[in-house]
Amino acid sequence: MPDFSFKVTGYDPFSRARTGIISTPHGKIETPGFIPVGTQATVKSLTPKELKGLGIPMFFVNTYHIYLRPGTDVIARFGGLHKFMGWDAPVITDSGGFQVFSLNRKKYVNTAISEFAVLDREKFTRNGTLKGRSDGVFPDDYRPVGELVRIDRDGVSFTSHWDGTEHRFTPEISMSVQNILGSDIMIAFDECAPYPTTREYSAAAVGRTHSWLTRSIAAWEKNNVRRKNKPYQALYGVVQGSTFKDQRIESAKFVSAAHTDGIAIGGVSVGESKKEMENVLSWCMPNLPEDKPRHLLGVGEIDDIFTLVRHGIDTFDCVQPTRLARMGHLFVNNQIIKSNNQKQKWTIDINKTEYKYDTKPLDRRCSCYTCRNFSRSYLHHLFRVRELLAYRLATIHNLCFVTRLLAEIRKAISRGSLGQLERAWLKSQ
Amino acid sequence: MPDFSFKVTGYDPFSRARTGIISTPHGKIETPGFIPVGTQATVKSLTPKELKGLGIPMFFVNTYHIYLRPGTDVIARFGGLHKFMGWDAPVITDSGGFQVFSLNRKKYVNTAISEFAVLDREKFTRNGTLKGRSDGVFPDDYRPVGELVRIDRDGVSFTSHWDGTEHRFTPEISMSVQNILGSDIMIAFDECAPYPTTREYSAAAVGRTHSWLTRSIAAWEKNNVRRKNKPYQALYGVVQGSTFKDQRIESAKFVSAAHTDGIAIGGVSVGESKKEMENVLSWCMPNLPEDKPRHLLGVGEIDDIFTLVRHGIDTFDCVQPTRLARMGHLFVNNQIIKSNNQKQKWTIDINKTEYKYDTKPLDRRCSCYTCRNFSRSYLHHLFRVRELLAYRLATIHNLCFVTRLLAEIRKAISRGSLGQLERAWLKSQ
Repeated sequence: MPDFSFKVTGYDPFSRARTGIISTPHGKIETPGFIPVGTQATVKSLTPKELKGLGIPMFFVNTYHIYLRPGTDVIARFGGLHKFMGWDAPVITDSGGFQVFSLNRKKYVNTAISEFAVLDREKFTRNGTLKGRSDGVFPDDYRPVGELVRIDRDGVSFTSHWDGTEHRFTPEISMSVQNILGSDIMIAFDECAPYPTTREYSAAAVGRTHSWLTRSIAAWEKNNVRRKNKPYQALYGVVQGSTFKDQRIESAKFVSAAHTDGIAIGGVSVGESKKEMENVLSWCMPNLPEDKPRHLLGVGEIDDIFTLVRHGIDTFDCVQPTRLARMGHLFVNNQIIKSNNQKQKWTIDINKTEYKYDTKPLDRRCSCYTCRNFSRSYLHHLFRVRELLAYRLATIHNLCFVTRLLAEIRKAISRGSLGQLERAWLKSQ
Repeated sequence: MPDFSFKVTGYDPFSRARTGIISTPHGKIETPGFIPVGTQATVKSLTPKELKGLGIPMFFVNTYHIYLRPGTDVIARFGGLHKFMGWDAPVITDSGGFQVFSLNRKKYVNTAISEFAVLDREKFTRNGTLKGRSDGVFPDDYRPVGELVRIDRDGVSFTSHWDGTEHRFTPEISMSVQNILGSDIMIAFDECAPYPTTREYSAAAVGRTHSWLTRSIAAWEKNNVRRKNKPYQALYGVVQGSTFKDQRIESAKFVSAAHTDGIAIGGVSVGESKKEMENVLSWCMPNLPEDKPRHLLGVGEIDDIFTLVRHGIDTFDCVQPTRLARMGHLFVNNQIIKSNNQKQKWTIDINKTEYKYDTKPLDRRCSCYTCRNFSRSYLHHLFRVRELLAYRLATIHNLCFVTRLLAEIRKAISRGSLGQLERAWLKSQ
């Protein structure tokens, strides 16, 4: 079985952008590459077959969610996520830490919100808190989960958002769980500090992250020996440090020096502005080795993509394309937006009445199944009457849009025309 | 463009069962054939491509729902439902009457229930009323619609279950609406009496149904002249008469004598027992002409299928296979049910904990996409965490199961072995 490797195949002469190929036991990923999120072992509404048809090379599964449901004992029966999900291409899992620390930021979580955010959107803010319910009265299916995360030097204890049971993650546990999941790329256990945070708290979290990285590597190496007849699992260390330049640089250097297959940048998705994201990347990236792939965790809104690529990010995962799709916010180029008098960038809201009679495809130049077969009017109808097909057709389109953009970016880098593509892309903003 | 025709291709020597081919401008339907329901211009969760892959020859769209949302003015822009839905095979529409009369039976309707019944199943009874809310307190999104239907000799006035607006259907309006929808098979406007009902009320409803049939035919013939360059739309008259033998026979004779392309049996789905259904069929079927196709409206639960086929039904529509799928009730043969110690007939409930670790496919002899690629454990997981993919994979399987059964039935009829197939099928009950 092939091990993990990364080969840089080209550089943009005017930025840190580069093309490359990540090889894993389950297949290759061309970089820069967008990695959709399949939180609960499914990219919401789509089959593996459709994902392959869209050119999705790998997807991201959240260890925390799988650990709780269906549980690692279920995944163990299948020998890993690939067989469980019916997906034979690469899979990346996180350490579980990010979701655990996120619990601290959500006062109330609906057990169904992650699946049906679109249904509940009038009741919820985008990060899962209930709107306008300061009276303290919550329906039965919302349970308090805030402040139920206890961090110590060794790891973190937390309460399940499903059933209130108590659990604990440490670097060793996270590695064992990811070993059972059998992902091609694992992420070391780290602490993602909340945003905003103090310099002091962030420094302490960076300290824990580095000590946990050392322990993650030790556990991973030990497990690799035991797993020797199973497919190799790569490990990425995580750079933290919030928005503090010195901490980010220190963390980038520490993680670069560690013995891992790749490097992830964490803590950029938790609330910083676009400007702060660019700052963080400009501090971290020059301090990372050229020969390891770099993954940006949880970032990749449509208007971030050129920025992160220019800074030398190779892969990034983001829920935005699929989540916006389920809300009816569909990616189109700016000419289409202008002709429809909409003000958003990159997306039109298909729920709007102006699409009721619109017999045109969403984007006549798009070759996705949705655009080849259906009109804006039909999509508008499906969203207005909340038909299940709506979420599918929208997800197919948004994923097609992003993967096509990344393919164009790879081609432009190899031709030295990335700047040109970006200007053309942003022109009509 | 070819017109409508029906050809009987074979008879079962021991019953009224027969095989045949219905030809429409958009394609052929082999009979006996199961017709899934796509109430709101979509068979919930599936694409037209998937439906074709499953061998679905035609689907049923509810005129009432389309008339209200998106509205006939939208469908008119597309020249009919086929283009709107991206479906180039045959479509059958009802008259709109059944849904209108059904409003009288539902005190409260959630605007989302038809799409997400599965989500709300703890709150709702199966016919859409709220459970255990006798206090008269209803959430905002449930609106009273009961007793808002007013029937007169000329037609029926009703209140939209979406927005409370007032509407009216008459035979002429129903025909015009179905002309706009452009379905291959239209249903004449009829009154479906509630169940149970009195002999007197049923007789009055049959009287209206017959007078409305005459008017439906007149409107249809007039419209056909106007529509002469468009694809031909066939018309089926409807036999009513509740559970009263004399009324059913009278109605069967009246409708048989009328100038229509086919005959539908109505009022069988509204609450009669299986025994009463068989009675109704035994009264009606001998009084119908052999050369017209017969459609049974809204009936076709898995254990009805052999009965209705034996009585000579050619096509039937039923929401059961798709609705049960979205609840996680999946069709399997009785051997599988027995080996899993379940008591239901034909279905297993994949939500049950016993499937949590079950790495086997749902039915190893089934060739559907779901059974070829996924385990019971994965389906159980998707249902338990309410992932959108659950409803799709389940719908694919249940439709595959029913269409395969119908294909076996057609083969058995042509070989004279229908009785044998039925006995084998029912053996382990």
